Amino acid sequence: MLTRIDHIGVAVRSLETAIDLYTQTFGLTLVTTETHEDQGVREAMLIVAEAPAGSSYVQLLEPLREDTPVGRFLARSGEGIHHVGYGVDDIVVALREISARGVRLVDERPRHGSMGAAIAFLHPKDVGGVLTELVQAPQAARAQEGAGQ
Amino acid sequence: MLTRIDHIGVAVRSLETAIDLYTQTFGLTLVTTETHEDQGVREAMLIVAEAPAGSSYVQLLEPLREDTPVGRFLARSGEGIHHVGYGVDDIVVALREISARGVRLVDERPRHGSMGAAIAFLHPKDVGGVLTELVQAPQAARAQEGAGQ
Repeated sequence: MLTRIDHIGVAVRSLETAIDLYTQTFGLTLVTTETHEDQGVREAMLIVAEAPAGSSYVQLLEPLREDTPVGRFLARSGEGIHHVGYGVDDIVVALREISARGVRLVDERPRHGSMGAAIAFLHPKDVGGVLTELVQAPQAARAQEGAGQ
Repeated sequence: MLTRIDHIGVAVRSLETAIDLYTQTFGLTLVTTETHEDQGVREAMLIVAEAPAGSSYVQLLEPLREDTPVGRFLARSGEGIHHVGYGVDDIVVALREISARGVRLVDERPRHGSMGAAIAFLHPKDVGGVLTELVQAPQAARAQEGAGQ
């Protein structure tokens, strides 16, 4: 069901400082920065490994305000790893199967994530404290949207 | 420098419960369980994606005792993501370069990690709160050990 580690999401106080760290110290390449008002974050995607089936990224997350999920995470825990995202081939099927096995879903239906992916979060209380995201890469997502029309 | 997300390390109270979750709910395959007395952990490696250059894993970590790094992490933060491990081609070169850029090293020299890999940890205070591990996969590690003799 899970096809790869798509990304780790890292909560940071300053996107610029964190981008400098990952590009200059670790040699990663910045791919995009995006602002997601609905999630209350400004984020940067840095590529770790490119692969035909879907690449792997470090996702840096800076909260837009304190009263956002990442803002509250920073206040509670400080900077650090916020979540992990796993690639799946079909996010709708994956959500159905995972839900059937008793894991509560934060997102009952996929929504738009970074770089055009379809994403959904699972409830960390049912995944051993790990905030877990499923990610269907854009190409597969587009094929499925087409098939559903 | 970083070639892939080698693994995410997850602190768990019960290895068996966590293995059940990742195999039954997410369909991952258990590859090995190992006990590392020096690190104070019993751990399980579950494969997420296989690749010639090095695979990706979920690493589950159960402390052997409370007075261990993972035991203290659980007491402080509860279950959840403990660290991230990135693949590198040459861990000695990578440590030298990263150290030269001002990141303190927990391990000045590589030591033995899961499944025969050579590993080293970087200081989370210099990596935005992220406990970061470098991993040189066993095959490359063996070639290098051979070259060094």
